[in-house]
Amino acid sequence: MRLKIISVIGPNAEGCTSEIYDFGLKLGKALTDEGFFIACGGLGGLMEAVCKGAKQSSSYRAGCTIGILPTLRKEDANEFCDVVIPSGLGLARNLLVVNSGDAIVAVGGGAGTLSEIALAWQLGKPVICYSASGGWSAEVAGRAIDKRKREKIIEAKSLQEILAHLKILSG
Amino acid sequence: MRLKIISVIGPNAEGCTSEIYDFGLKLGKALTDEGFFIACGGLGGLMEAVCKGAKQSSSYRAGCTIGILPTLRKEDANEFCDVVIPSGLGLARNLLVVNSGDAIVAVGGGAGTLSEIALAWQLGKPVICYSASGGWSAEVAGRAIDKRKREKIIEAKSLQEILAHLKILSG
Amino acid sequence: MRLKIISVIGPNAEGCTSEIYDFGLKLGKALTDEGFFIACGGLGGLMEAVCKGAKQSSSYRAGCTIGILPTLRKEDANEFCDVVIPSGLGLARNLLVVNSGDAIVAVGGGAGTLSEIALAWQLGKPVICYSASGGWSAEVAGRAIDKRKREKIIEAKSLQEILAHLKILSG
Amino acid sequence: MRLKIISVIGPNAEGCTSEIYDFGLKLGKALTDEGFFIACGGLGGLMEAVCKGAKQSSSYRAGCTIGILPTLRKEDANEFCDVVIPSGLGLARNLLVVNSGDAIVAVGGGAGTLSEIALAWQLGKPVICYSASGGWSAEVAGRAIDKRKREKIIEAKSLQEILAHLKILSG
Repeated sequence: MRLKIISVIGPNAEGCTSEIYDFGLKLGKALTDEGFFIACGGLGGLMEAVCKGAKQSSSYRAGCTIGILPTLRKEDANEFCDVVIPSGLGLARNLLVVNSGDAIVAVGGGAGTLSEIALAWQLGKPVICYSASGGWSAEVAGRAIDKRKREKIIEAKSLQEILAHLKILSG
Repeated sequence: MRLKIISVIGPNAEGCTSEIYDFGLKLGKALTDEGFFIACGGLGGLMEAVCKGAKQSSSYRAGCTIGILPTLRKEDANEFCDVVIPSGLGLARNLLVVNSGDAIVAVGGGAGTLSEIALAWQLGKPVICYSASGGWSAEVAGRAIDKRKREKIIEAKSLQEILAHLKILSG
Repeated sequence: MRLKIISVIGPNAEGCTSEIYDFGLKLGKALTDEGFFIACGGLGGLMEAVCKGAKQSSSYRAGCTIGILPTLRKEDANEFCDVVIPSGLGLARNLLVVNSGDAIVAVGGGAGTLSEIALAWQLGKPVICYSASGGWSAEVAGRAIDKRKREKIIEAKSLQEILAHLKILSG
Repeated sequence: MRLKIISVIGPNAEGCTSEIYDFGLKLGKALTDEGFFIACGGLGGLMEAVCKGAKQSSSYRAGCTIGILPTLRKEDANEFCDVVIPSGLGLARNLLVVNSGDAIVAVGGGAGTLSEIALAWQLGKPVICYSASGGWSAEVAGRAIDKRKREKIIEAKSLQEILAHLKILSG
């Protein structure tokens, strides 16, 4: 049976507040507790936090955290990232992060996160936005991105709501 | 001297109203009159309209309209598209459309257009949104996508304003 | 400490002989025994064999085998592939397979494998070709692809030689 | 009627002899005389030569030469390149160069050219190799890359033979 991968998207080091970083730690641990693998963009900020959090789970084993980098250099990845895919594709790696996930969890976020939410929507992937984190995740939570689909971006107001939605999605 | 390319982004056939299509015809003609080349996603809707409009300009010559397709099949391009780049990269072609432009003009638009606006912002490309067209172009016109930059998405309320902004940008 | 990933490249189901498939099983098991993770193109033939072989190692744990697909559909991956990255990038995924590896092992192979060997050479990645397998791996083993570099494609005549070279490369 | 694009692949400045550069000038002029557009990787060496040669044709008009760069910077393109697509995709741009062509002409060439020939073969694109130029073009001219297809890489021993083959291919 294939592992379920959750793609976590959100601010890099520059745009990441300490609240978002702390939430990322808890999110990474909780997703790993639930047996999910985590894919992210492999850099700092929220991406680092979820990878670091994963290692605090008793269910953690090497390989749980996948970082898909924009560059070709594995050393650009945060130190908590186990499996590093150095895409060399620049911002096209945003799409790979989205494609890798069975579902997407968005936290805070600026333009990069917004592009990923929009691409996920185009691909019909379920997107859960943590609305307490501000940024584009808060702005699009609970609404539709365009008229072509009936599903909305899922709003989650807490870690518990994120996990509950993922449980429903993984059936 | 290198040709200036304007990337025009907006709805495909499914999401394109007749108002947006008509505006696309005028936009394509006007950009070609001004000596710009046009890059777009190569498909229907607004993309077809700007390519068709380009051919109504007396400055038109074969090669003025560039379509960057998500698929590998040149025959997927609209018939008014001269130079077809069949990327085979799926939605990653959105990024190529943005990268090709010296400036981006957005009209209407759903998730695809939104992803392109967000990617253009990340890349520091000037983006002009036609706010009279509704959709994400209207929603983000005049605002900032995130806090990392001081420039805003440029709002244009008419074709004349789009052309005036492009004139300023091409210095 | 980051996991070492070996990218294994070679024929898909159509081009894979039973000898190459059997070799792939042994290669997958041996690489996993040595503590390497395996990246591949995620489809059938040799790619399936190395993923299946990995599961026969006592060091195997879920997450050891990474498949980077050309398509967007996770269900296109072989059943022994744990972590599936559905790139949606068509043949551009060949480059991602190469980029993911700290070293590349090539077995047999036609045009796809040849493109990957050539790309790995351009990127300066170490490439070990199993010369007993025929195909392009045999043809380029021990030679230089072009004049710009002094290293040659490494020739290995047996599984033992492959493992010995990997041991040297991982220092 | 859609313009026919010929993708010309071969050495960059580092690997380009003066014989290959001179041949590139003639090739670029001849392809433009015949009404073809030219796509290439946009950099120096053979890529520069074909773009420069195109401008010596009386059929030349701005837009005839398309350069698809690995980087995001239009200023990396050679000065004779009219339409610049700065892909930002690194070596994945090799695939875009191949995909853009209705046929591929290869001259000389090292690893990059080899990867492009192999990718073109996988995609079923006609590839004409100029065998008098040495490099991988000479090495694979007239042979099959693998067993899956019956067509061979077309060998051309002169500019006239290249043009004759293109005439047949464009029907």
